[in-house]
Amino acid sequence: MRTIEEQVLEANQRFYDAIERFDLDAMEACWEPSGRTACVHPGGEWLVGWDRINAAWTSIFHNTDYLEFRIENVRAEIEDPMAWVTCTERVMSSTPGGRVEAEVAATNVFVLTNAGWRMVLHHASPVIRPGGAEEE
Amino acid sequence: MRTIEEQVLEANQRFYDAIERFDLDAMEACWEPSGRTACVHPGGEWLVGWDRINAAWTSIFHNTDYLEFRIENVRAEIEDPMAWVTCTERVMSSTPGGRVEAEVAATNVFVLTNAGWRMVLHHASPVIRPGGAEEE
Repeated sequence: MRTIEEQVLEANQRFYDAIERFDLDAMEACWEPSGRTACVHPGGEWLVGWDRINAAWTSIFHNTDYLEFRIENVRAEIEDPMAWVTCTERVMSSTPGGRVEAEVAATNVFVLTNAGWRMVLHHASPVIRPGGAEEE
Repeated sequence: MRTIEEQVLEANQRFYDAIERFDLDAMEACWEPSGRTACVHPGGEWLVGWDRINAAWTSIFHNTDYLEFRIENVRAEIEDPMAWVTCTERVMSSTPGGRVEAEVAATNVFVLTNAGWRMVLHHASPVIRPGGAEEE
């Protein structure tokens, strides 16, 4: 018997697994099939609804050779039937332009549906650290 | 009698009013007094808990001469006792270094407490548009 927190963290992990596998079907299965879903990729604007979110993932998957996520500082907070996860993504990607490593702050919001915990919001943003400077 | 959505949007507006007034007491009153609160400022890392969130607002308020927010594309979604708001912030700020205008994508998550709807998460990220290029 899994706790609610375990279920939410599994849903969160399925999302990152879908990205790493470039699996659009698995990605769609992570999301609530509704018009209220919303997504921000690092540096991007709001994408609302699965059609726009799907188009963005399709573009990312087509323009990337390799993606690997190391997920750190994962915190899941539950207010049944909702949950939100915050984490830091260490993203290693390889594109035709070269290899990139990035630190990304992410919020993932889930709701409990008949099909289990589904994502309604993904907000990812670049963590910009002053070059060579110590943190305050 | 206000609807739940109206109450959530009022809580969201109180948050931006507190920023514009540089009012730390009003800002604190926007947040759930708990350790699970979390905040990302544009380009920043996760700040968890009011002590760290408060320190960041204090720094922003002390280092900024003027802040004005125009809030656009506001969408509130409710799953009582939770709600999440997405919006685009047009931020006009004046610092000792000069005047800056920025477009920011924001997620604001609220929970219903005995003291009304309180923020548990604020995630703000820069919207970076290719210079002079048309959107795809």
